[in-house]
Amino acid sequence: MPTPAILLYADSAQNSDQLYFGRVNVPDPFISFALGRKKYAVVSALEFGRVKRDSAFDVVLPLEAYATKARSRFRTGRTTAAEIIAVVAKQFRQKTFVVAEDFPAGIATRLTHHGLKIQIADGPLFPQREIKTAAEANAIREGNRCSTLGILAAEATLRASKIKNGLLFHRSKPLTSERLKIAIEIACLEAGAVSLDTIAAGGDQACDPHERGHGPLRANELIIVDVFPRVNSTGYHGDMTRTFLKGRASEAQSSLVAAVRDAQLAALKKIRAGVNGHDAHDAVVQLFASRGYETKKTAKGSVGFFHGTGHGLGLAVHEPPRVSTVDYRLKKGSVVTVEPGLYYPGLGGCRIEDVVQVTSTRPKMLSDCHYNWEIK
Amino acid sequence: MPTPAILLYADSAQNSDQLYFGRVNVPDPFISFALGRKKYAVVSALEFGRVKRDSAFDVVLPLEAYATKARSRFRTGRTTAAEIIAVVAKQFRQKTFVVAEDFPAGIATRLTHHGLKIQIADGPLFPQREIKTAAEANAIREGNRCSTLGILAAEATLRASKIKNGLLFHRSKPLTSERLKIAIEIACLEAGAVSLDTIAAGGDQACDPHERGHGPLRANELIIVDVFPRVNSTGYHGDMTRTFLKGRASEAQSSLVAAVRDAQLAALKKIRAGVNGHDAHDAVVQLFASRGYETKKTAKGSVGFFHGTGHGLGLAVHEPPRVSTVDYRLKKGSVVTVEPGLYYPGLGGCRIEDVVQVTSTRPKMLSDCHYNWEIK
Repeated sequence: MPTPAILLYADSAQNSDQLYFGRVNVPDPFISFALGRKKYAVVSALEFGRVKRDSAFDVVLPLEAYATKARSRFRTGRTTAAEIIAVVAKQFRQKTFVVAEDFPAGIATRLTHHGLKIQIADGPLFPQREIKTAAEANAIREGNRCSTLGILAAEATLRASKIKNGLLFHRSKPLTSERLKIAIEIACLEAGAVSLDTIAAGGDQACDPHERGHGPLRANELIIVDVFPRVNSTGYHGDMTRTFLKGRASEAQSSLVAAVRDAQLAALKKIRAGVNGHDAHDAVVQLFASRGYETKKTAKGSVGFFHGTGHGLGLAVHEPPRVSTVDYRLKKGSVVTVEPGLYYPGLGGCRIEDVVQVTSTRPKMLSDCHYNWEIK
Repeated sequence: MPTPAILLYADSAQNSDQLYFGRVNVPDPFISFALGRKKYAVVSALEFGRVKRDSAFDVVLPLEAYATKARSRFRTGRTTAAEIIAVVAKQFRQKTFVVAEDFPAGIATRLTHHGLKIQIADGPLFPQREIKTAAEANAIREGNRCSTLGILAAEATLRASKIKNGLLFHRSKPLTSERLKIAIEIACLEAGAVSLDTIAAGGDQACDPHERGHGPLRANELIIVDVFPRVNSTGYHGDMTRTFLKGRASEAQSSLVAAVRDAQLAALKKIRAGVNGHDAHDAVVQLFASRGYETKKTAKGSVGFFHGTGHGLGLAVHEPPRVSTVDYRLKKGSVVTVEPGLYYPGLGGCRIEDVVQVTSTRPKMLSDCHYNWEIK
């Protein structure tokens, strides 16, 4: 049976398999494939020089020439990427390709119609992506250095703020979530990374874990700051969260923050190669239960701890493995976030997140930022 | 025959169909569909409250409940989005779905296996996305306001720079492409937009249209600045390019810039509803030819004018229609960039880009920035 060749059709700005495969940032979808030990890309004149120079592709083919051939071979109907792939496949005498689950269905259907056999990978296209090399771990550490700089920029802004009638003022203007996020994102830009969808949410807003925060920030309320920048030079991410409070914390707020930090430490104790991610997640669930923090659904949404303890981190912000209710055996070398949280409207939300690499003993920290949270 | 229902499975941070459909930014892939006149989303507890509150979805369903049902119905094998969609489809008695070409092939295959019929849209899933409403045109205008602020930040930095031994210095440090991009991106952030993949490339680097620029910038060379930010509040983009030169331009550089601007005006004269985009592109090609600018392939890559004149702009940076060698009739209300360019290593590259909305007469400008380019 002929060996299927790996085939991709995606841009590498958004599709992390394509970036992993070719190690070059191309903003528009392009064809790439592996034949034997060689990696091929088919790119337009716009990208040709840069991809030839800067990528991991062994062979770079000119899109225009193959598009011309495709137009003459498939005279009726549109010429899409599928027709170009069919022409390339014929030249290389390759009839079977394996593609990722997120390969475009439209192209897969057309390829089948043109007589090619398309197999969909059962699971990741590059399972080895889950195991990070030393260079990849360093790239993630660099991402977290950018996260730390963003979080410290937020802390500095909160420290420099004044409290007036329960609201925060920075340089005499109301401090909003938006302004705090800009301070964080500028710090990341200056460090060589882009922080998209930064979260700086206070009070009840922070109880909605994917609410990014908007409007004025208040004194004496918990403010969740979650920064997951992508490093420009490598495409790898950091992902860290700290929770701050400007003013005076109540006892209930202090207990909440302490529980979340203790839950993080409990999960970190469990994480090692061979352990089920589920067990690390259970350590968090049990710690919260032992402190009396209940998780439940209310008419307005969930309260307590209702997300996973962690997820893989790399070229994508969310990738395998998972540390959650799902069974998933942790492998040596994989990189995961550890981010328990508690959310109670009225009291507030707290999440603390760090990143570790799984080893056969204690996990190796890939993030580094202090845990002081109360800013007087 | 039953009416097929539109089905999507994508995040709305990257997939612009999903954002167009639900008008809410969700960073992880989620299920959405249209039945009759109603829009449905299936989202996790993490997103539930925010999507219910902030989106265009009429009905928001809890992912967790459907995942539980899917696990009990499909006891063997993995429970993926496909199994959850199958459970939802059964509840709503819907057997046929139409999906976009970029719908994940893995899910399409599993759905077919579960007895559903998946049709792939021939062309865009939402053809009406090409025609921009007044609100959408304003959102793009706002994107271009952010582009202008980025470009003016670059200009201000170049004006404030000093020339020493042919290199540019800003605040006593060498001015690099990287520093210029940070100045641009900070201006965009402060205006409420994110500028990814900003281009600030000088000299021969600018002759590679997708090279973003790196290293020190030099005096007396053309610097292409291309800024296509996404507005945080709407997801719509701006896309503008200006070419600057700090120092003294040669006659050849001046002629190059004048030709590009004249080519842009020639294309703008052609663009109106009913016209083939190809014809506007040809106006550019002819103007360049009449001035003696040759387009050809060399061993090192293409020189001259070797990209399209323009592309549609909206929730995606590149979307229909096209203004290029391809036949594409321009429709009233569509929004396109007009961005001719010339690239000759040794002399340099120049691109000038604005954005217009197609009308039945003269196109309506949606971008606004001066064309002075020589900075003494």
